[in-house]
Amino acid sequence: MARSTVMSARDIEFLLYEWLDTASLPERERYAEHDRETFDGVLALAEQLATDVFAPINRLVDTDEPRMDAEGRVVLPAEVEKALAAYSASGLPSSVFDAELGGMQLPFVVHAACSAWFQAACVGAFAYPFLAEGNANLLVSHGSPEQVATYAVPVIEGRWYGTMALSEPQAGSSLGDITTRAVRQDDGSYRLSGTKMWISGGDHELGENIVHLMLARTPDAPAGTKGISLFVVPKHLVDEDGSLGERNDVVLVGLNHKMGYRGTTNTLLNLGEGGHTPGGEAGAVGFLVGEEGQGLQAMFHMMNEARVSVGAGAMALGYTGYLHALAYAHERTQGRALGQKDASTPPVPLTAHPDVRRMLLAQKSYVEGALALVLYCGRLVDEVTTGATEQERDEADTLLGVLTPIAKSWPSQWCLAANDLAIQVHGGYGYTRDYAVEQHYRDNRLNPIHEGTHGIQALDLLGRKVVLGGGRGLGLLAARVQRTIERADAAGGDAATYAVELRGRLDDLLRTTATLWEGGDPELALANASVYLEATGHLVVAWLWLEQLLAAGEAEGTFYDGKRAAARYFFRFELPKVGPQLDLLASLDRTTLDLDPAVL
Amino acid sequence: MARSTVMSARDIEFLLYEWLDTASLPERERYAEHDRETFDGVLALAEQLATDVFAPINRLVDTDEPRMDAEGRVVLPAEVEKALAAYSASGLPSSVFDAELGGMQLPFVVHAACSAWFQAACVGAFAYPFLAEGNANLLVSHGSPEQVATYAVPVIEGRWYGTMALSEPQAGSSLGDITTRAVRQDDGSYRLSGTKMWISGGDHELGENIVHLMLARTPDAPAGTKGISLFVVPKHLVDEDGSLGERNDVVLVGLNHKMGYRGTTNTLLNLGEGGHTPGGEAGAVGFLVGEEGQGLQAMFHMMNEARVSVGAGAMALGYTGYLHALAYAHERTQGRALGQKDASTPPVPLTAHPDVRRMLLAQKSYVEGALALVLYCGRLVDEVTTGATEQERDEADTLLGVLTPIAKSWPSQWCLAANDLAIQVHGGYGYTRDYAVEQHYRDNRLNPIHEGTHGIQALDLLGRKVVLGGGRGLGLLAARVQRTIERADAAGGDAATYAVELRGRLDDLLRTTATLWEGGDPELALANASVYLEATGHLVVAWLWLEQLLAAGEAEGTFYDGKRAAARYFFRFELPKVGPQLDLLASLDRTTLDLDPAVL
Repeated sequence: MARSTVMSARDIEFLLYEWLDTASLPERERYAEHDRETFDGVLALAEQLATDVFAPINRLVDTDEPRMDAEGRVVLPAEVEKALAAYSASGLPSSVFDAELGGMQLPFVVHAACSAWFQAACVGAFAYPFLAEGNANLLVSHGSPEQVATYAVPVIEGRWYGTMALSEPQAGSSLGDITTRAVRQDDGSYRLSGTKMWISGGDHELGENIVHLMLARTPDAPAGTKGISLFVVPKHLVDEDGSLGERNDVVLVGLNHKMGYRGTTNTLLNLGEGGHTPGGEAGAVGFLVGEEGQGLQAMFHMMNEARVSVGAGAMALGYTGYLHALAYAHERTQGRALGQKDASTPPVPLTAHPDVRRMLLAQKSYVEGALALVLYCGRLVDEVTTGATEQERDEADTLLGVLTPIAKSWPSQWCLAANDLAIQVHGGYGYTRDYAVEQHYRDNRLNPIHEGTHGIQALDLLGRKVVLGGGRGLGLLAARVQRTIERADAAGGDAATYAVELRGRLDDLLRTTATLWEGGDPELALANASVYLEATGHLVVAWLWLEQLLAAGEAEGTFYDGKRAAARYFFRFELPKVGPQLDLLASLDRTTLDLDPAVL
Repeated sequence: MARSTVMSARDIEFLLYEWLDTASLPERERYAEHDRETFDGVLALAEQLATDVFAPINRLVDTDEPRMDAEGRVVLPAEVEKALAAYSASGLPSSVFDAELGGMQLPFVVHAACSAWFQAACVGAFAYPFLAEGNANLLVSHGSPEQVATYAVPVIEGRWYGTMALSEPQAGSSLGDITTRAVRQDDGSYRLSGTKMWISGGDHELGENIVHLMLARTPDAPAGTKGISLFVVPKHLVDEDGSLGERNDVVLVGLNHKMGYRGTTNTLLNLGEGGHTPGGEAGAVGFLVGEEGQGLQAMFHMMNEARVSVGAGAMALGYTGYLHALAYAHERTQGRALGQKDASTPPVPLTAHPDVRRMLLAQKSYVEGALALVLYCGRLVDEVTTGATEQERDEADTLLGVLTPIAKSWPSQWCLAANDLAIQVHGGYGYTRDYAVEQHYRDNRLNPIHEGTHGIQALDLLGRKVVLGGGRGLGLLAARVQRTIERADAAGGDAATYAVELRGRLDDLLRTTATLWEGGDPELALANASVYLEATGHLVVAWLWLEQLLAAGEAEGTFYDGKRAAARYFFRFELPKVGPQLDLLASLDRTTLDLDPAVL
């Protein structure tokens, strides 16, 4: 049977069961209703739906971009609606939620693996339920029981969709500058007015309703982030019995036309300017979630998962691109092996050329490394929820915090690099829209931008996560890396060789981190934060390759040989790149800090 | 006055006159009719035409992609025809050609600088005359006087266009495998039949005629590259008086739909299958250029300039992207400077953030480094043509040969990286089609593929150019780098610091090159040729930054400060990347060579 070009079920199986010990999770109370069989059933369902229903429409969602009709309604291809109906019917929208809310109460790590199939198959269509899930998740954590019942449960049931409406035209990275205004009414509700920009899934006709979770500012709230509150703002107001009432005053003003990721509407929304105001003061009707002024805090609480999810999407696009390139390289013939002077011999497959093998192996090391990173973080989410002790849960939370900017940014950078190599393997054909890889490349370019740009992740890592609690997060990470190094030392062979290298890089990283901060000059410490982020990311993925190598052990077969080859590639070709980066950081280079922009 | 976002006239002026001594070229016989004033006049003309006529249609050529009408004719926006008519009317198509052919006999380096304006403004439209020029250039070098008069002069006059028709669906990188057949007729002409793929500008209605230069195989020719001959195959046959006769049997079968570079038709052509055969045997009428079996040799003779031109196009796209990002970063405000806790202060320009400055400075170092590389190569072309002695001409030719794969691949890689950073500086806006930078990124992705892929350039550099003549090319390059190092040593200051670093890297490169080849195993030597190409490229651009730093000298002003800052950036952030690359090469790593593709 031909290998899937969507995702690798075998790799997921390896990571979940041969590495992350997912089979033991049903021993925990939360997952007691499950066993490996139910996990595998859900994974198989995801594979089948993604392959048969989502993958076939991936090009369509790119060519038939969302548009607005004369009534200002979003028009999407009918196939998207069908695919999402099938997803809803499968019950997968409920997978991580509590049973009492109608959820399947699956481990997050299993859910993450399922999602990878859909993100790889058709990220543009899958974004709608994916965003909805994040929305419901936030509401479940921070909403009142009534808000959860009214607004989250229909999302969990797959009937409604949801958004995260943070950005405004003038405020993207700097959320403290949002100006959307929320005025409290006598009945306790609020009226919101303003403009929201970049809202993915911000309008469409896919489900019965759309639940917006919006950041806004109450009158007299302090400037900056402390004056921001969170509101639930439904597209259609909801009556007490749960039936849909009037249209709320959230008006679609425009669709953004993107380079890629075109299947997902990305919208400019106006609040309180349309003709939909349901009585009373002008503005969209919203309901406060939590306390006034706590909005950004609630949003950031969910940010870890949202950011890891962005990294997961980047990984999935890189992964499917790699599988496409691999299939092409096995099949397409071109040229002769070096030294074959007889031009009358038949041409050889692309894989006969070392440079093509280099490009494939690089992709493999990036995408399988990224999948390991994403699932490791997914496993940490489960530890945060179900770890045996308070200390274990707290450690997992701290470690997840440190890894989050890496899990967001590393796949966004390197799985995009994988997409670039996938095009290169295809040659001229890869540059045409007859092949899938050019779309992957365009789609994936979004990921270093949204949910906090690369530079924002860098500041989060070096300026916040690494210094929090006296460096506790970095210490926890270093301890885990150290433990792997010790196991690799004991294992001997290549693993022991790599362990030596990794130990050296880890020592350099820790020393460099101290050097950066001991000067007491945050501006200087953070000037090259992006370089720090990238170096740390490579080190973390090298660690996870060493973990995979140990998990593969002495097992025989091409699958395990592939893991060994990719680990070798990563340690020989990739990890050494960290050297000059850490040298630069350790030198406290002032080039960018002191640069006068007038000379540019 | 607002700075141009197309190209930098100031940088071109600096490189041509303050560095490459272009003002002295009129002392040479070939350029005796010129002086700096005529050079500047042509440059100003290029700037004005590119800015006023080409730049405004750049988005249009992307959105209104070429299509075929019911009669199989190519439909392009009328604006393209107008822009190209203006280009023809300017006389620029003739700029490098001999006066006796109606040419302006301009130095190639000045011509290259002019072309950069058009490549930056609208590469999709400019490709037509650009390809035509390469076509005429080849014919002037290898055609008979009659062929030159009949087929090259109308191109030089800007009335006709031309193509290079090499690839076929099954043979791209491996030209030895082409199967297009050319059968000699009694009248000395040939009839060609077969299929040509990826032919840029392969059909359109822009000029009066299209001159195809095609590779084909005569019956009984030996297999491989030695059996390939070169033919001139006009779209419309030409009568003895130069007027157009019958339509030749070159049939447009399909247009390739690309990710970018959409303004340029890219075609699948059938020969000898249409209804156009002008009498006699089936097939397109062609005329042998040079001797049978010498076709690939003739084509490769022109390849240096064609490949440098691809690098120039990549540079131009990176350069204009940088200028767009810079303008945006000066204007757009977001967030506060680090340490500014007062959220009520107004937001600062993007350039106030060190990470944004890093992204801008990186772009500057890539695109200005690439422009220096491209113009240096252009200057070498002039040396090949007009150097004072045979030895000087020969040295220039050898050095140009070594630099060609670098001038093709380095800008294709790093100016695409610049385009990536230009998007990142724009944030979400950069990902939309409302801004120019996403198109630059898509357009530029072609350049690592065509005219020899990245991997092909790597084999050309390490497998051919570096070993030719006992390493004479690399030796010449090293000698020039060494001379710059000595001048920098003498200059003192930063230049002397960088000189030390560059000397160390150069020594490593030379030692590594020897290590690679002394084992006598070409397969092993070439296994990581791409890594060698990339390391050498970075070293060469570092050298050219040192050259620019010396040319800037102690001069005052923001322009020169900018050169110093970019040189500093390149030596601090970029050159050190070469270290791990050379280490890997020196280790004779077998990872990709020994890899069994079955494990991927």
